[in-house]
Amino acid sequence: MASRQFDPPSGTRDFLAGVLRTRERVFTQIREVFERYGFEPLQTPAFERLETLTGKYGDEGDKLIFKILRRGEHEATGEADLALRYDMTVPLARVVANYGSQLPTPYKRYAMGPVWRADRPGKGRFREFAQCDVDVVGSASPLADAEVVCALTDALDAVGVRNYQVLVNSRQALSGLLEVYGVPAELGGGVLITLDKLDKLAPERVAAELVEARSLPAHIAEALVNDLTAADAVERMHTTLKDSEAGRAGLEEITGLLELAAGKVGRERIAFTPSLVRGLDYYTGVIFEVTAEGMPGSIASGGRYDGLISALGGPDVPACGGSLGIERIIGLLSDHEGDVHRLDVAATVIAEDTSTELAGFAARLRDAGLSTEIYLAASRKLAKQLKWAADRHARFALIYGASDKEAGVVTVRDMDSGEQAQIPTNELAAHLIRRCAPSR
Amino acid sequence: MASRQFDPPSGTRDFLAGVLRTRERVFTQIREVFERYGFEPLQTPAFERLETLTGKYGDEGDKLIFKILRRGEHEATGEADLALRYDMTVPLARVVANYGSQLPTPYKRYAMGPVWRADRPGKGRFREFAQCDVDVVGSASPLADAEVVCALTDALDAVGVRNYQVLVNSRQALSGLLEVYGVPAELGGGVLITLDKLDKLAPERVAAELVEARSLPAHIAEALVNDLTAADAVERMHTTLKDSEAGRAGLEEITGLLELAAGKVGRERIAFTPSLVRGLDYYTGVIFEVTAEGMPGSIASGGRYDGLISALGGPDVPACGGSLGIERIIGLLSDHEGDVHRLDVAATVIAEDTSTELAGFAARLRDAGLSTEIYLAASRKLAKQLKWAADRHARFALIYGASDKEAGVVTVRDMDSGEQAQIPTNELAAHLIRRCAPSR
Repeated sequence: MASRQFDPPSGTRDFLAGVLRTRERVFTQIREVFERYGFEPLQTPAFERLETLTGKYGDEGDKLIFKILRRGEHEATGEADLALRYDMTVPLARVVANYGSQLPTPYKRYAMGPVWRADRPGKGRFREFAQCDVDVVGSASPLADAEVVCALTDALDAVGVRNYQVLVNSRQALSGLLEVYGVPAELGGGVLITLDKLDKLAPERVAAELVEARSLPAHIAEALVNDLTAADAVERMHTTLKDSEAGRAGLEEITGLLELAAGKVGRERIAFTPSLVRGLDYYTGVIFEVTAEGMPGSIASGGRYDGLISALGGPDVPACGGSLGIERIIGLLSDHEGDVHRLDVAATVIAEDTSTELAGFAARLRDAGLSTEIYLAASRKLAKQLKWAADRHARFALIYGASDKEAGVVTVRDMDSGEQAQIPTNELAAHLIRRCAPSR
Repeated sequence: MASRQFDPPSGTRDFLAGVLRTRERVFTQIREVFERYGFEPLQTPAFERLETLTGKYGDEGDKLIFKILRRGEHEATGEADLALRYDMTVPLARVVANYGSQLPTPYKRYAMGPVWRADRPGKGRFREFAQCDVDVVGSASPLADAEVVCALTDALDAVGVRNYQVLVNSRQALSGLLEVYGVPAELGGGVLITLDKLDKLAPERVAAELVEARSLPAHIAEALVNDLTAADAVERMHTTLKDSEAGRAGLEEITGLLELAAGKVGRERIAFTPSLVRGLDYYTGVIFEVTAEGMPGSIASGGRYDGLISALGGPDVPACGGSLGIERIIGLLSDHEGDVHRLDVAATVIAEDTSTELAGFAARLRDAGLSTEIYLAASRKLAKQLKWAADRHARFALIYGASDKEAGVVTVRDMDSGEQAQIPTNELAAHLIRRCAPSR
């Protein structure tokens, strides 16, 4: 294990320049979209008081918490008093509770940053990973649901995700469906958890699980699965749900969201999808997922969760929101090395005692906005320094030898073509600004 | 204490939109400067293995570490295996050790992000705070020292800090000085720690401490303090240090740095300052601090620390670097509320059944780059919604009542002047783009 001692801790990553620049670009593009929608940024601490986090998502959730040991004389107790946040929603509930009157009403906020979960690390599953959420706290308006969906899909457009589909359903519609089929209320939660597997398992297997694990009569299980997976599932829902108050309310929610979001998202990219369930049981209204061609699972999801903020310790306010599956999206967009970053100018140092002039050239070029590096290693060989300039992806290298200095010029080498030109030192900045301009 | 339960944990802060936008703006401005110098970004995990962090800065350093409890069956042991990073330098040393050949040589990196220290919280002292570092690993060149100083001062210029001074000294010059004064090597470290107080205490008190706490003969203590605080201290050093090899090397380092950096920083803003010590004992070459008018302490600092990377677990390579006192700088720049953020357009919702049209207007305006919000709360009263638009600092409010809809227009209210104009719906986007343009 000795060779692993300099690796980052299990489940975490070091981001070197290439990949980090890709990540930062994606975050910036998303931030611009969220700001255009009037969402406000919020940043909370990496850790919260332990009691703020525990008990919020059940025992399974509590197991995922990284706990921080008490300090000083209390360290020996082995007790924890703080813990790393594992989502952005619990801190949101605390912030709404704490700053209520200082916040706009409704409070539209976005949060982007790392969260930590003590999950078993695996391919694409990390212990430190970024989340990217938008939420509207304090609005029951269907417009709020639509704003969340549009902000997320607009963000997908901005980062360059193509060919996605927005699947829409409603927790009320699902409740209505169970009611119409006579599923007892106490079985509803379990039945929905099983139905959630319709995107992964064959319909017969889901029906079988409804019978075996959820105690549904076989004819009900089959009829339910048939209805949800039929080619005309949407039409069937419109017929079936008419008989339930919750069902009618759900259909109205869905129709409303499609109507409000279709103009922006595109009518062909958003659709009522009766088999969409979403496992989390805190949703109370519309729910949605975004899927993209050739990708397993979803790249964005969310819905209305009117009871969650109060369940998490905040005030009792209606709310809705959604997340981008940002790690998955970044994984799609970036190749192994991440963004290639071109340096405008690499200044070689081949003559003795030209450092001050070279520092002066670099200062002028940087003041003009050109990214510029000076060779800082020990070699004085030009070939080695030009190799360095190439490794740095420089557009131009500066060569300033004794003869250049005497002639009052700098030799500018185009690193793509290999062509060299001698430029009077007082024209250097203007010359390079002009030549770098077209590609900037 | 019940009323505090929704506060962030002691020593940490929630950043709401205004202050957070100020912070993000400052980080962006600094990042642009560092990129222009060819520094590469690096981001390491929030936590490291406990053994990576402990023992690096002595017992006092270890006390500041937030430790993370082991998980699952090991939780009951009360032991920690991970810990939050408390600086950017230990992770840098680990990264250099781990990715050596994948990194450019020399490796110029910047890092900006939070670190965590279990310090006693106080005014301006936090347990979670941002650090902002540039370092050059693998270069012994004086140009590297100059690049660090210039990148940091250029960053101060970019964020708008005025009237700063760069104080320069050299650890070798200080060693030479102690040598000339016959201070035994084993007392040197303690003597420097006391001399470091010259910027806070009266010279006599520092001389007294040198005698009492550091066992220096009184005449040596007084002469040393006199030399460092005299009006002609610089001239005295040039004379005194001639008699020591380390002293001569130190003077050469200082003169070299002033020569290379003065062109960019401005000769009047950078000076050899013999009384500058900097307490940290890992410095081996030039050291510097930046002070600004009307501010206690320094707003940037750094130096050359050729032995530190290997002492922290990395390879034995020369290195230099510096930090911006970013929390102090942000504190200076931002008032209590932070940046005011203007919204371009606030769309009111006063008529029934106009939601779809309003969503369409908002979509077109956002596509054109205008930040746009739709009223999402329950009231249908125009006065209340115009108050909301004013609270959101909107430039323009849209009013789209039944008569507007019938006439095919939208009423656009200038929120600064109160003037209203009726704009045909198909001209709305062009009209608002034009009116928002001058101030964008």
